[in-house]
Amino acid sequence: MFVNGFVCKSPKLVTADDFTAHSLDKPGNTSNPQGSAVTPVFVEQLTGLNTLGVSLARLDFAPYGLIVPHYHPRGTEIMTVLEGELYVGFVTSAPDFKLFTKIVKKGDVFVFPKGLVHFQFNYGAKKAVAISGLGSQDPGVVLVPNAVFGSNPPINDGILAKAFQLDKKIIDYLQSKF
Amino acid sequence: MFVNGFVCKSPKLVTADDFTAHSLDKPGNTSNPQGSAVTPVFVEQLTGLNTLGVSLARLDFAPYGLIVPHYHPRGTEIMTVLEGELYVGFVTSAPDFKLFTKIVKKGDVFVFPKGLVHFQFNYGAKKAVAISGLGSQDPGVVLVPNAVFGSNPPINDGILAKAFQLDKKIIDYLQSKF
Amino acid sequence: MFVNGFVCKSPKLVTADDFTAHSLDKPGNTSNPQGSAVTPVFVEQLTGLNTLGVSLARLDFAPYGLIVPHYHPRGTEIMTVLEGELYVGFVTSAPDFKLFTKIVKKGDVFVFPKGLVHFQFNYGAKKAVAISGLGSQDPGVVLVPNAVFGSNPPINDGILAKAFQLDKKIIDYLQSKF
Amino acid sequence: MFVNGFVCKSPKLVTADDFTAHSLDKPGNTSNPQGSAVTPVFVEQLTGLNTLGVSLARLDFAPYGLIVPHYHPRGTEIMTVLEGELYVGFVTSAPDFKLFTKIVKKGDVFVFPKGLVHFQFNYGAKKAVAISGLGSQDPGVVLVPNAVFGSNPPINDGILAKAFQLDKKIIDYLQSKF
Amino acid sequence: MFVNGFVCKSPKLVTADDFTAHSLDKPGNTSNPQGSAVTPVFVEQLTGLNTLGVSLARLDFAPYGLIVPHYHPRGTEIMTVLEGELYVGFVTSAPDFKLFTKIVKKGDVFVFPKGLVHFQFNYGAKKAVAISGLGSQDPGVVLVPNAVFGSNPPINDGILAKAFQLDKKIIDYLQSKF
Amino acid sequence: MFVNGFVCKSPKLVTADDFTAHSLDKPGNTSNPQGSAVTPVFVEQLTGLNTLGVSLARLDFAPYGLIVPHYHPRGTEIMTVLEGELYVGFVTSAPDFKLFTKIVKKGDVFVFPKGLVHFQFNYGAKKAVAISGLGSQDPGVVLVPNAVFGSNPPINDGILAKAFQLDKKIIDYLQSKF
Repeated sequence: MFVNGFVCKSPKLVTADDFTAHSLDKPGNTSNPQGSAVTPVFVEQLTGLNTLGVSLARLDFAPYGLIVPHYHPRGTEIMTVLEGELYVGFVTSAPDFKLFTKIVKKGDVFVFPKGLVHFQFNYGAKKAVAISGLGSQDPGVVLVPNAVFGSNPPINDGILAKAFQLDKKIIDYLQSKF
Repeated sequence: MFVNGFVCKSPKLVTADDFTAHSLDKPGNTSNPQGSAVTPVFVEQLTGLNTLGVSLARLDFAPYGLIVPHYHPRGTEIMTVLEGELYVGFVTSAPDFKLFTKIVKKGDVFVFPKGLVHFQFNYGAKKAVAISGLGSQDPGVVLVPNAVFGSNPPINDGILAKAFQLDKKIIDYLQSKF
Repeated sequence: MFVNGFVCKSPKLVTADDFTAHSLDKPGNTSNPQGSAVTPVFVEQLTGLNTLGVSLARLDFAPYGLIVPHYHPRGTEIMTVLEGELYVGFVTSAPDFKLFTKIVKKGDVFVFPKGLVHFQFNYGAKKAVAISGLGSQDPGVVLVPNAVFGSNPPINDGILAKAFQLDKKIIDYLQSKF
Repeated sequence: MFVNGFVCKSPKLVTADDFTAHSLDKPGNTSNPQGSAVTPVFVEQLTGLNTLGVSLARLDFAPYGLIVPHYHPRGTEIMTVLEGELYVGFVTSAPDFKLFTKIVKKGDVFVFPKGLVHFQFNYGAKKAVAISGLGSQDPGVVLVPNAVFGSNPPINDGILAKAFQLDKKIIDYLQSKF
Repeated sequence: MFVNGFVCKSPKLVTADDFTAHSLDKPGNTSNPQGSAVTPVFVEQLTGLNTLGVSLARLDFAPYGLIVPHYHPRGTEIMTVLEGELYVGFVTSAPDFKLFTKIVKKGDVFVFPKGLVHFQFNYGAKKAVAISGLGSQDPGVVLVPNAVFGSNPPINDGILAKAFQLDKKIIDYLQSKF
Repeated sequence: MFVNGFVCKSPKLVTADDFTAHSLDKPGNTSNPQGSAVTPVFVEQLTGLNTLGVSLARLDFAPYGLIVPHYHPRGTEIMTVLEGELYVGFVTSAPDFKLFTKIVKKGDVFVFPKGLVHFQFNYGAKKAVAISGLGSQDPGVVLVPNAVFGSNPPINDGILAKAFQLDKKIIDYLQSKF
């Protein structure tokens, strides 16, 4: 039996393990150009979350690590910093595109409203760690640079050149990176 | 009295005009760099839509006009072409970032799922017109280039340089455009 | 796999065609006693709309054509006139049964709130065309005359005679028509 | 402060009386042409129901009393017969307009799905009583004959004549009754 | 096909019986320590309620019968007394834990808000009967004494001793009863 | 202006501080009989969470500290252990009252489904810390012992004696504690 496209176990076979995940104390691998890693506990990782409307993620940042501008189409994110300091922000929708930013330190909490573009940047020379709750078991993630320049297949470069008012060559260069 | 942050008229004072808007037959002004115009009938334009869960928009395209990559955080868009031909597409969320595109002509209908980045491009030398229904009275619009490069105040250029793997100068140039 | 009673394709097999419908530029056949036709693009016609919360319909009217009093149990309708002029209205619920009516012309927009009885009448000698967005992928349609006098099997004529304070013969006559 | 358009008392002033209604044991007055009476306990009668998503109603029937075809736009009705026997039914939406009917006696339960036209008829020579739960604090009631023939102001008789395929005189006669 | 984990019949095979339940006029068996019985008509008993958002229950009370403190995680309960008199109450959530109580007699209606602990007690020497509507087809029932002292397997007695500030022996005694 | 009973600031006056909370790195005060403390960041503490559907809480445990059996009527809780080890569990609803328990250590994640009674116990001699995401900005908390034995005013002791099958004196003793 499927619910929301996920297998739904018979109640008779359910055990406590269906509600358990592990290793959120392990740092994600930040050896990548952005210097960041997200370890999600969403319904895809923990099927027992199905229909329950919440999820969790661990965010790791190398020094100067960045979680690139992105949004969650189906859930607000509420983050607390466990270690280090972050410069975070989100941008409101049209027509204002207002940017709200904040330096958040250990113990601070910041909210990224559902569906808005936001980023988290470790501006310091030490690593940083945060934990986020998200208001959906399947919040979704759209990384803006990847969706725009790294789709599969790529978006026509003429369209992106027009959208971003950039030369096609820069677009091609960008697309080659993602 | 307010409902959802919008004034709610007394039922005794409501008239048919509260459910009426005008001029969706008038082309929007496409004399802009993108060569496109969106004329929304959302709750902001027609307060009577409040709580009713749907809205409408007219899309105009000059030749080679583009509605830049954008998304609606609170509603799916279903569009039908009234005139001309469009090349349209949307990109799925992480990790696949799959691009779905289609040439749509007069009478064709295309669906842009809630929260996903999409664009509409008039690839021909004639103008084009479309009408869209949206599944919210307040679907919201996030134009990706504007949210990323045109926020107010701007996002730190170092962050965007890192996010898009571009030189800061290009970022600065981009930010100067929006 | 089924979601909401509709087959849900594997994401790997989904193509842009699953989000595409055709021929909404073709007039529906209005050669019927009401002189009207509705061409829906609901989830039944376009399965890709499933879970996306919106749909579209084209409305065609011969001169003096009427879409009979009806309601959509699961969605508000927002209509714009593409051609011609219509006299439209809806009736509120008990105890007021207030009628709101409006003449709507090319470019006008009118909203029929979810679940309320409404009609659209082409009072002129020319054909008329409209496009409607509906706030559900499966808004449902209950045509009041058909539900009351044309059900299968028919509602007991004594009950309808009492309800409408009409002679049973008139009820029988009515039921023979639907 | 208002929530959903209803006054919301300060929690400090709330008492048990805000959750209490009375007299549902008193028969409604069935001395009317339909021989029926509905005594609702909806949010309008009991403000404390606001946001709580359920309501109750008592249904009284004189011998041969009828609750005319009607629907609730915002809630399913589940009814149980306390006294007497009823002939009940509902009609599905387009395109089938299938009629489901049942004789229900004391202790029987019947479900009228949200938004579908239904009726309850006391076919016997004794009075009947039923209690219904409804899945909304504000389910709404649209009595079909009243909405169609008894609106205020009346729907144009030409439109109704066309809709019901009846002579205008019969429509005028009908409208004079409601 | 399954919807919400319940079998969903083909519309072609559905009959009026799928919307019908019986015997709610029969008293439940109150020969138990609490002197009470609940006869539910939830989706588990009447599959046709699936997706319809409402249910019904009959409550029977022997003299001095009690429905022990419990809550419904997914629905508000609105109850009307058919026979006898009850002393009822509910407790609000933290931090106030305010108790609202009321004597309700034949014809009185009382509302137990979704998710709050409540009880119904027949304080008189005669039996009592009530009918409740609930705002979900699957409201769920958590009997507090059973959930706490009668779970399967039992909750560790040291934990309960600490929680209730009771001696372990009393906890063990309590657990032996459930 | 109020939304959901909370003041809603004008968008023009909103700042990043409206989305920021502090001090979640500070241990709560566990000098209480239960040896535990919950530090919530719910809409009551951070108004900017209103309508956003998620919240966060920090849980502190002294050695052998317990968060007593409780439930959240409006949200699932997903918890991760930052420090120490916990023995946690939840109980399903009627009729099974099945207990699911688990030892969770640093980095483990456990899910407590919406509306079900659960507890968290620090069975070790060291303190423990956890962070929880909850799927509502206003999940609510019902501490079972307090709701049952510590309400204001107290529930009638005869009712509780009957419910828990305990002597009234024990009930009185219990009520004196809360």
